[in-house]
Parts: sequence; C-alpha cells; structure tokens
Amino acid sequence: MKKRNITIAFLGLSFGVLSAQSLKSPDGKFEMNFKLENGVPYYSLSYEGNPVLEPSKLGFEVFKKSTYNYKDISNQESLNLSSGFVKIDEKRDSKNEDWQPVLGEKKFYKNHYNELAITLNQKEQNKNIVVKFRLFNDGLGFRYEFPQQENLNYFIIKEELTEFDFPMDMKAWWLAGDYDTQEYVYQTSNVSEIPAKWAAAVEDNVSQSPIKNGVQTPLMLKREGKKPLYINLAEAAVIDYPASNLDVSAKDYKFTIHLTPDAQGAKGYVQTSAVTPWRTIIASPKAEEVLASKMLFNLNEPTKYKDTSWIKPTKYMGVWWEMIIGKSQWAYSTADNVKIGETDFTKLTPNGKHAANNEKVKNYIDFASKHGFDALLIEGWNIGWEDWFGKSKEFVFDFVTPYPDFDIKMLNDYAHKKGIRLMMHHETSGAATNYERWADEAFKLMNKYGYTAVKSGYVGNIIPRGEHHYSQWMINHYNRIAEKAANYKIMVNSHESVRPSGLNRTYPNWVAAEAARGTEYEVFGGNPPEHQTILPFTRFMGGPMDYTPGIFQTKMNYYFPNDTRFVKTTLAKQLGLYVVMYSPLQMAADLPENYEKHLEAFQFIKDVAVDWDDTKILAAEPGDYIHTARKAKGKEEWFVGGITDENARDFVVDLSFLDKGRKYEATIYEDGKDADYVNNPQSYHIYKKVVTSKSKIPVKMVRSGGYAISIKPVK
Amino acid sequence: MKKRNITIAFLGLSFGVLSAQSLKSPDGKFEMNFKLENGVPYYSLSYEGNPVLEPSKLGFEVFKKSTYNYKDISNQESLNLSSGFVKIDEKRDSKNEDWQPVLGEKKFYKNHYNELAITLNQKEQNKNIVVKFRLFNDGLGFRYEFPQQENLNYFIIKEELTEFDFPMDMKAWWLAGDYDTQEYVYQTSNVSEIPAKWAAAVEDNVSQSPIKNGVQTPLMLKREGKKPLYINLAEAAVIDYPASNLDVSAKDYKFTIHLTPDAQGAKGYVQTSAVTPWRTIIASPKAEEVLASKMLFNLNEPTKYKDTSWIKPTKYMGVWWEMIIGKSQWAYSTADNVKIGETDFTKLTPNGKHAANNEKVKNYIDFASKHGFDALLIEGWNIGWEDWFGKSKEFVFDFVTPYPDFDIKMLNDYAHKKGIRLMMHHETSGAATNYERWADEAFKLMNKYGYTAVKSGYVGNIIPRGEHHYSQWMINHYNRIAEKAANYKIMVNSHESVRPSGLNRTYPNWVAAEAARGTEYEVFGGNPPEHQTILPFTRFMGGPMDYTPGIFQTKMNYYFPNDTRFVKTTLAKQLGLYVVMYSPLQMAADLPENYEKHLEAFQFIKDVAVDWDDTKILAAEPGDYIHTARKAKGKEEWFVGGITDENARDFVVDLSFLDKGRKYEATIYEDGKDADYVNNPQSYHIYKKVVTSKSKIPVKMVRSGGYAISIKPVK
Repeated sequence: MKKRNITIAFLGLSFGVLSAQSLKSPDGKFEMNFKLENGVPYYSLSYEGNPVLEPSKLGFEVFKKSTYNYKDISNQESLNLSSGFVKIDEKRDSKNEDWQPVLGEKKFYKNHYNELAITLNQKEQNKNIVVKFRLFNDGLGFRYEFPQQENLNYFIIKEELTEFDFPMDMKAWWLAGDYDTQEYVYQTSNVSEIPAKWAAAVEDNVSQSPIKNGVQTPLMLKREGKKPLYINLAEAAVIDYPASNLDVSAKDYKFTIHLTPDAQGAKGYVQTSAVTPWRTIIASPKAEEVLASKMLFNLNEPTKYKDTSWIKPTKYMGVWWEMIIGKSQWAYSTADNVKIGETDFTKLTPNGKHAANNEKVKNYIDFASKHGFDALLIEGWNIGWEDWFGKSKEFVFDFVTPYPDFDIKMLNDYAHKKGIRLMMHHETSGAATNYERWADEAFKLMNKYGYTAVKSGYVGNIIPRGEHHYSQWMINHYNRIAEKAANYKIMVNSHESVRPSGLNRTYPNWVAAEAARGTEYEVFGGNPPEHQTILPFTRFMGGPMDYTPGIFQTKMNYYFPNDTRFVKTTLAKQLGLYVVMYSPLQMAADLPENYEKHLEAFQFIKDVAVDWDDTKILAAEPGDYIHTARKAKGKEEWFVGGITDENARDFVVDLSFLDKGRKYEATIYEDGKDADYVNNPQSYHIYKKVVTSKSKIPVKMVRSGGYAISIKPVK
Repeated sequence: MKKRNITIAFLGLSFGVLSAQSLKSPDGKFEMNFKLENGVPYYSLSYEGNPVLEPSKLGFEVFKKSTYNYKDISNQESLNLSSGFVKIDEKRDSKNEDWQPVLGEKKFYKNHYNELAITLNQKEQNKNIVVKFRLFNDGLGFRYEFPQQENLNYFIIKEELTEFDFPMDMKAWWLAGDYDTQEYVYQTSNVSEIPAKWAAAVEDNVSQSPIKNGVQTPLMLKREGKKPLYINLAEAAVIDYPASNLDVSAKDYKFTIHLTPDAQGAKGYVQTSAVTPWRTIIASPKAEEVLASKMLFNLNEPTKYKDTSWIKPTKYMGVWWEMIIGKSQWAYSTADNVKIGETDFTKLTPNGKHAANNEKVKNYIDFASKHGFDALLIEGWNIGWEDWFGKSKEFVFDFVTPYPDFDIKMLNDYAHKKGIRLMMHHETSGAATNYERWADEAFKLMNKYGYTAVKSGYVGNIIPRGEHHYSQWMINHYNRIAEKAANYKIMVNSHESVRPSGLNRTYPNWVAAEAARGTEYEVFGGNPPEHQTILPFTRFMGGPMDYTPGIFQTKMNYYFPNDTRFVKTTLAKQLGLYVVMYSPLQMAADLPENYEKHLEAFQFIKDVAVDWDDTKILAAEPGDYIHTARKAKGKEEWFVGGITDENARDFVVDLSFLDKGRKYEATIYEDGKDADYVNNPQSYHIYKKVVTSKSKIPVKMVRSGGYAISIKPVK
C-alpha cells in the first residue's frame, strides 16, 4: 500500500467524505465506489473484496476560450473541471440483453450490467457533468457526459485527467505511447520498469510521435501472486474524441489518460450534449475470461444501418506480399516525381516490376477461384505510387485512375465470372483531406465495377498537417469514411488507422483494421515469437485485425540469396493464427506458388471459417500461448487453433465443447517433430482422427510453433 | 544612400561581380539589373535612370526534410537556396499581345513585356533554380521557377528571402501584416515610421494573427519630392503557395517577403516543376498609371474554361444590410447550440427577427425586379446560424438545408418569374474542410434551383485547425472551390478570402472577392473617409472587390435611437463608388425603403454599368481622391465617378474622352451645397446637361463627398 493513500485516508477522516456511492456487478464480484473528497471526484474498484483500483481521480482541464488560431495553444489559459464539485443527482439502471453481431465470434453477445450515473455540479462555474459507470461481470466501463446547459455549450479539452491508480506493481504487456503509430514491438516488464525500458521500445517508424514514458491502450496487465488478476485497460466508442494513451507514474503504479493532441495541441473540441469514450477496466483471475470479454462492443451503440445483408465474411488473397518482400513493386514506372492529372503515365518508362498488371492479376484470380476464396486484393493498381510516400504530398492519389497495364473493367469481369470479387485498395499516404475529396468518386467507381470491400491505408504523416493518426480530426475521418462507405454498401478494412474501440458494432461494415504490427513487419524488422500471443489481449480487444497470416514460405533467402529476413513462426503456427486471431476478413497472404507446394496444409486455410456461432478460449496466457476453439457460423464444424511464443509447449485439446454423442472427423495440422521456426519452419504433420466430446487431442508445439484442427461431423 | 550599400559596392570591387544582366522595358524607361555577388543573387530596378530598387537579394531557406509531423517545425534543420550560385543559362523573350478579359475594365488588356530568365546552379547541392523577370512599361514582375531535377523534387520552404530594398524613405499606405485578416484600417506614414505606428494599426478582429512590424501586400508607396514616383508592391498568380506579407526594415527602407505559415510553421510545400507567384513592382510618376496597371492580370495564365458565356456581370441587392446593422438576424431561433443533422429546427422557438423568411424575401424580389436588378442575395437562409461563429465547430453548416421559413423552391420560382436570380450564400465559418465535404451537394442544389452565383464567407479561425486564411492550404482551397464552382457554371464572390492576385484571368467565374474592410465596417467600427481612396491602389490591384456600396441611410440612429454609428460618406460619394471601385458584381446594399425615399438618386445605381469597354483614370492620389470614367460594355454610355477623403475638393471633369462630334446628355449627381458626411449626408443635387467631348463639368465634393455622372448619347 502506498504512503500517499494513507494520507488521503487520513484527510478523508478529518474533512469528511462528502458523498460516496457504491455499485456492484450483476454477479456481485465487482464493486465500484465513487466518492467526492473535498470536491474532487474519485472512483475505485474491487474484485471479490480485493482492491483492483485504489481511489483514482476523475476530471478535466479545459481551455478558457472555444477557438484559437495559434500553432500551439498548450500555454493558453485554462479552467479546471476536476474539483469543486458537489453531487446533485444519482441515477441507477441495469440491463441484461443478448444482441447479435452482424459478424462475430459468437451468435449472441451478452450485455449485462448495473449502471450508476452521478451528476456533479461545479459551483464556481455552475457547470454540470455526469460520470456514468457500468459494472459488468467482466469489469467496469465509465464515461463522462456533458449535458447541454447554459454554461457548458462548447469547450476545448486541455487534458482528460482520468486516473487508474493500482495498489501494487504488476506485469505489463505494453506498447510505447505514440500519436502516430501502433507498430511498435510489445514490451513485457513490470509497470515500475516502464520508464527505464521506454526508450528502447521506440523503434523507427515512417510516422511517429512518441509520448515519453507513455504507453498505449489497450494495455494488458497482470497482478501476479497467489491470487493473480488479469487486467485490461482500454477504451470503447471513440467517437468525435481523440484516442488515448496512458502516462505512467511508475513509482506508484498509476496510469493517467493522455489524449492525442491535434495540430494546435488541443485534445478535443466538445459541443454539448456530448459524451466521452468509455474507459474500460476488464479484470478476471483467468486470462481466458479477459480474451472472451465483449465489453468494448457492449459499450458501443447498435448500428443504425437498416440493411446489413451486404456485410459478408471474406476470405481473400492479394497481390501484395510480393511487393512487401520486395519481389515486385506498387509503382508502374521508373519516374520518381509524378503529378496526378498532369503526368501522362502511358508515356513513362515501365519499371518492369509492377505487380498489378493484367496478366499477373488474372493468374491470382485463377488461383483464388480454384481454391474457393471470396476476394482478391490488388495493391498498386492506381496511378501515383511513384512518389506516394514521405513527400507531404496532398494530391498523391485520385483513387479512380488505373495504371496503363491494369484493365479495371476486364479484370473485374474476369474475376466475377470466376466467382471472385476484387478488393479495392485506397492508400491515402496520410493525406486524409485528399481522400475525403475523392471518396465519393472512389466509392462510385467501386460500385460501378462490383468491388464490395476496400483496404485503406494511412502510411506517413497526416494531412491536415500537424494532425496525428489518433487525434480527434482523424478519429472523425475514419468514422466518416466508414459511414460513407456504408452508403455505397462497401466494407472497410483500414490500415494504419486508430486501434478499434468496438465501433464495428455501430459500423459493422468496418469489418477489420490493421492498427498494430501485422505480418508485414516480419520482413520490416520482425515480430518476436510472442507477438501473436499478446495481440489478442491488446489490439484485438476492440475489434478484428487484418493480421494477414498464412505465410508458408517464411524465409526470404528463398527469393533473394543471402537475405536473412524470415517470418518468425513455423508454418503450423501460421495456420493456428486463423483461429486464434478473430477477423471476419482473413487473408491468405502468401504467393500462390508457395501454397501450390503445400496444398495439404493449405487445405486448412481453405476450410477454416471466418464468421462464428461460438468461441471458447481453451487456455491463454499473454505473451506465452493461446488456444482457441470456434464453431463455424451456421454449421456443426469446429476449428481449433493454438500458438506459442519462443518456448515449445505441449497442450491437450479437450473437445468437451463438442455436441455430446456426435461423431466428428478431426484433421490435425501440427508442427513436425523436427520443426523449428528458425531452422525448419515448413515441417508439419497432418493427420485425421475420429473424435467425440470426450476426446482429448494432445499437441506439441515447437518454439514459435502452433497447430490447427478442423473438426467436421461424420455423416 | 545607405552606408551598407557603399560597403557592398566596395566588396563588389574587391571580389568581383561574377555575372550581371540587364533588361529594359519595351519603352526603355525601366531597367532591371541582375547580378551575382559572391554567389548571392541580387536584382535592382531603375526608372528613367533613377534607382527604384537598390540591389535586393533573392533566394530561399528550405527545410532539410520533406515531411514532418510536429506542431512547430521552425527550429528544424534547413538548407539555404540563397547563396553559392553560379549562372548557367540565360534566356530572353518578349511578348506584345492584347487579350480580352471575360469581364473587365477595358475591352482588351495589353500584355507587353521583355523577359529575362536566368538559370542559377547551386554547386554544393547541385540544384538549379530559375529567376524569370518580365519588364513591362508599368514595372517589373519576377518569379522563381524550380525545374524538375534529380536533386530538387520536393521541398518545404522555411522562408522566401526576396527583398525590395529602396534607396530612400517613402510615404506608405499600409495595412498591418496578418495571417488571418485584411480588415484593418489603412495607415499612412513614412516607411521609417511603420514600426512606431504598427501596434496601433492592429485592431481586434474575429480571426487575426498579426505579424509584428509587418505590412500586407499590395503595398502602396510614394517617393515624394521633385520627381515623385508611385510604387506598388504586390504579387500575381498566387497558386499552390502562401500569400505574402512584407517584413519592414524601417531604418534602411527595405521590405522582405514574409510568407503565411501553415499549421506547422511551414511556408510552402513544393513539388517540382513548380513556380512561385510573381513579385510585382508597379511604378509610375503618375498615380493614375498605377491604378490603370493590368500587370497582375497579365502575369496570370489565360483561363482554360472553354465556355465562359455563363459568367455575367451582376448588379444585385441583398437581404443582408439589415442583419449587418442589427435590425434582423441570420439565425432563425432563440437556440444557441444546434447540431446539423440532429436538431429539428422546426421545433425550435423562432426568434422573430429572422430576415430570410418567405414574405420578406418576396418583398425584396419585388423591389429588385421593379428596379431592374439581376440578382438578390439572401443570407441566413440555411440552418446553423444559431451557433455558427467562434466555437471551432467543424460541422457548422450543411449548405443544403433551408430554415423552416425559407421555401427554397417557391422563392426561386417566384424570383425567376420576376427576372431575378437568387444569389446563394455559403458562410463556412472558416471550416474549409467541412465546406469541401459539402461543396458538390451545395452546388448541385444551386443548379437544381437556378442559382448562378454564390457569396462565400470565411469568418473566424480556419479548420484545418492551425491553418491560416492565407496559408498554402487555404490558397489551394479557394482556387479549388473556384474551379469546382466552374464545373457547375457558378460564379463565386468570396468574402474573408485571400486578397486577389489577378487570378480571375484564370478563374473568370471568381468574379469578385471581399478581402478587405468593406462597407460592413462602417457599422463595425467605421471606415475613415480616405478608406475608399486607398483601396483601389491596394486591394483592387489584383481583382474586383465586392465593396457593397450604395448606403443611402448612413445614420444608424434612423433605426435605433441614440445609435452613434454612421457611414462616413455622403450619399453622393456612395454613388461615386460604383465607378471608382471596379467590380463586375456590384451590390446596392441598402434597404429598399431607403431607396424608395431617394428614387432620383437611386436612378444612378440602376443605370450604372458593371462591365466595361474602356476605363480612364482622370485623376487620383492615394488617400486623397480618385476620379474615374468608364465606358459601358457594348454601349456608347459613359459613367464618371469621383470621391474624396476628409477634405472637400473641387474638380473639373474633362469630357475629352467622349467621341468627338457626338452629343450626350449628362446626368450629374453631386453633393448638395450644404452636404456634410457627418451632419447632412443625404443632401445631393442632380441635374442634367447636354455635353460633348469639349465639355468640362465642374464638381464640388464636400468632405468625404463625391459625385457620379451618367453620360448617354442624345438620340
């Protein structure tokens, strides 16, 4: 227990706690307490009687004026909305509903909570704010609400002051805080060690604005000891508000919200009535329960879309990996300075490495069609790639003009005849203003040729210049594009966009996002073997990730002599990722030629579902391993996947989740006995077995290995 | 002569002038000299052998990187593009053409110049830049050109270093420099006095970013003495580049370009090949010749529009002045917090002062139609005015939804039946990103209902936040909107936009702009009597201004007891403004009821042309008086207007510009003998007279008075 808190307790005795309210979770295990202490609001949280969070401050600092035209407003006069409060109202509510996600991990998501809304009045300014708490069986969500009122119509946030004050040191799986990138490697350390380890956690990125000693949300924590507790700090429903990082006070294990500033250093423009995103603390003695939590989705609003029938699970391939590894190029020509609307691309000298050409795309279509895929992504189809990056170039793409060797009509017609949809690609180069100008035309083009999904990208510094990937303006941009795409019945898969906060409940066409270090980083610097065992506890908490698994040829010296780059997993682990990492949009990212060589293993990728009626987290420990079983949407088929970190592990898959009495055929794809992610990644072993709910399947995972199992009823 | 220059001359002797080129104007009166002195480029200018500009430096400071994501990049590493040059090429050219403006002051504009283009190579970085000079009979224009080359593809300007180094002190008519407003009062002082008088020249404005000791372009100067010389410093063709102010070095009478920074402090993102705006020095011993200069238009590119038949001169009235003076309101309701797309405006409580209502608009249409106007502007027609200003609110208007009491279809139908076009109003509140999102929908709505012109506005701080009204991003915005409007055959009249730089040659549908202190300031704080005698020498040099003259009821105590606000002119001066201030879009800004009381004087406003075949500046002195005669487009009619400052003046209008031998009837509208802009502004005298080219009409202008004459052939 920290000394400071003893002092506060003493003050509480002498000056009096003016107000205190308690809220319990439906199962009674969680208790949230709210109090005003000398006018300052605090909340705390306990689980089974033990403190999860000590009294932690709530509130804001806001700027005095509601508009500025300076480059930097951080020194401007501000007002506090963090003290001098009295409680003037208190409302309680509860809900217990099952709702059906359009695409999801289960048929129904349970939304069960008790709610407490406390209205606070700040006398001096006569301003009312509401703090609304929802206590679920898996933890706490709370947000601030700003009712429209005479003295609170418009304001600019200088900082949100919300604290998460933990009673003791914990293990943390963290990403260095940043306003512009989430593509760092996860660090594992105690909270108290974060400042010492922070600098080394900041790797170079094409757009980055590191927050010294800060960490990103979602943050995964574990209180170790006899009664371990897994804790996840995140946020839900980030709408018209910047995304949050966390400042770390290492010596007293306290985190404080650190919002992403805009070009002027402001942290949110608010017009009442308004609400903030939900701050979430998911906690459980079982890591599996944290992974299973749907709290972030429950805290989002149901979609307003009337028709969602066009939102479909999608398994896709792409003309992509060959550019990522450097075998071919996005750009068509040898030029390095082109101007959209001025340059005649037919007159440029082709570089001979342009992948998005008619012949190659047709070959990919043939392969994807033959193997039953839904879609094929083609990157580099549109003019502008010659100088697309790092030039602060606003009019970098028009999103409607194909390169001379990409016949958009012919290729879409060809694909459709073969049962394949082409997937559009909209790289913005961070120039969001330019993308907004073209979005309608771009989506109309998609409708015209029958594209139903778009992968968008935000590589590089943002335009409007000075804005950040996670500032309020960009948050609004991503949400605006999702909504606009829906008007055209287009699904969105955004890359380098903000980490999801459960918004695909509201925008179910925003089917996936990248927003973390994906498979491409295997060749950009490498993902450590534990990487994929942390992602589901962090990045995936708010929504599906387009991780782009499925790399069978993990060694780059296959393509380029002496190339030391390699994907740091076994082939079997790549298969396991399809189950462990939930996304209704899943890629088979490798080249057709590599799948041709391993068609037996490829069969799992062809078989695995991407939309589910049920999910069981069989076992999980962040940074170590995850074992997941899922039941395919509308079918009696189950798929199981497991992955491990740099340590080899054995596991026994208990099939008790299967229907009792039914017989199934299981196909097991596991690491070969001699498999090794460094020396022999392509060694795998596939076998079949008849199983029932009483069966147990033992699996051995080599270091950075994994396995996948498909289970189908015997007819 | 300044001491410093003597030193430079000495250095020149000792180290040698490496290169020197001379260029003469077609009439031989101007001579421009270019030299490299120790690798530093200088230009100088003389008129009839006397120096206008001493050797003045050229060049740039550019940032080392081509993209940043910081709030403030001003301290980032930079490179110089201002020294270390050698001349590697020199090209000469000349042109003598007459071209026809779509709308203009004359049927043809003469574009006659000698050109010298010097290519400089900076050895160290192996970069080439070109300085292109065009010497006209009315002065010098020059710009920088950046050819596309291996070592110069993309760069960010830290500052343009162009100097204007004058040999002696001069009288200056100047506006305080600012990144966000041009709505200051003109100051008159010697250049050497500017710093001492600068602070007092900065008045409060709703959006302002004053540049300490800076002044704005266009800047009017006069070298006094036995051989006076009138000099105008301005810029032409501001495209994809920030607008410029001038830093003043008062002790040595030197001005240096000070570009408007963007949100990050950058002063222009350049992708080669690229050119800067033209820097212009118009000079003449006669003030009238400066006013008559068309150099800024000559230095712009001809329009690419194939059809310009839809661009028409427009005389209009407006539901506007009654809001400006406070008699009625833009907003419909008593609410002060509304949300577009959420608020149901039909449920709000009307404030009872909403001017843009069906009944009132119909009355205005009736009056405008009866008196032969082309158009009627209606402000406050669309939802959002309740909280439109000062809130940094991005989604402030949708530009397509009328208030409940404005029947857009009925009113347009009604207007069209009466031969009137309604003029659209798009106030953006500075939220340019929002306007760009809505522009297509907004223009489609205009096409649907038959609007052919839009008045746009940019009141308040800019969004993208941190950008300025005159930064590169906003320059691109204004130009983009002009071009987009042309796609819909819509004429644009932009307010609070950047001062024009002759761009209506290229975008002839951008028929007018405000971009200075217009008539509205008569009730916002007042325009001094000399104001309108300075504007044509400054603001109007680059294009028409929608000054909105025609106020007959100049005293606000007519509307509100004890209101001391008043328009600081006589009624006759208001008439004179229609000729003195060229705009093909001219407003009769006062209320119909005020014109009803002075129909005889109103006749001049009804008669006066707004598009011209010829223009003669009869006499002019900045800050004192202007007398202008213009010949109506396609007619034998002439109109003369004169205005004076705070001093009463006599003038004799020499009609020798009329066709010889032809008889005309002149109608003279002059100040009454007892007229006085403070005490008796509505006293005027109208009489008719038959005149010929030999006639002379004496006029007496009282203080801040004026006159107008219409001259029609006797049939």
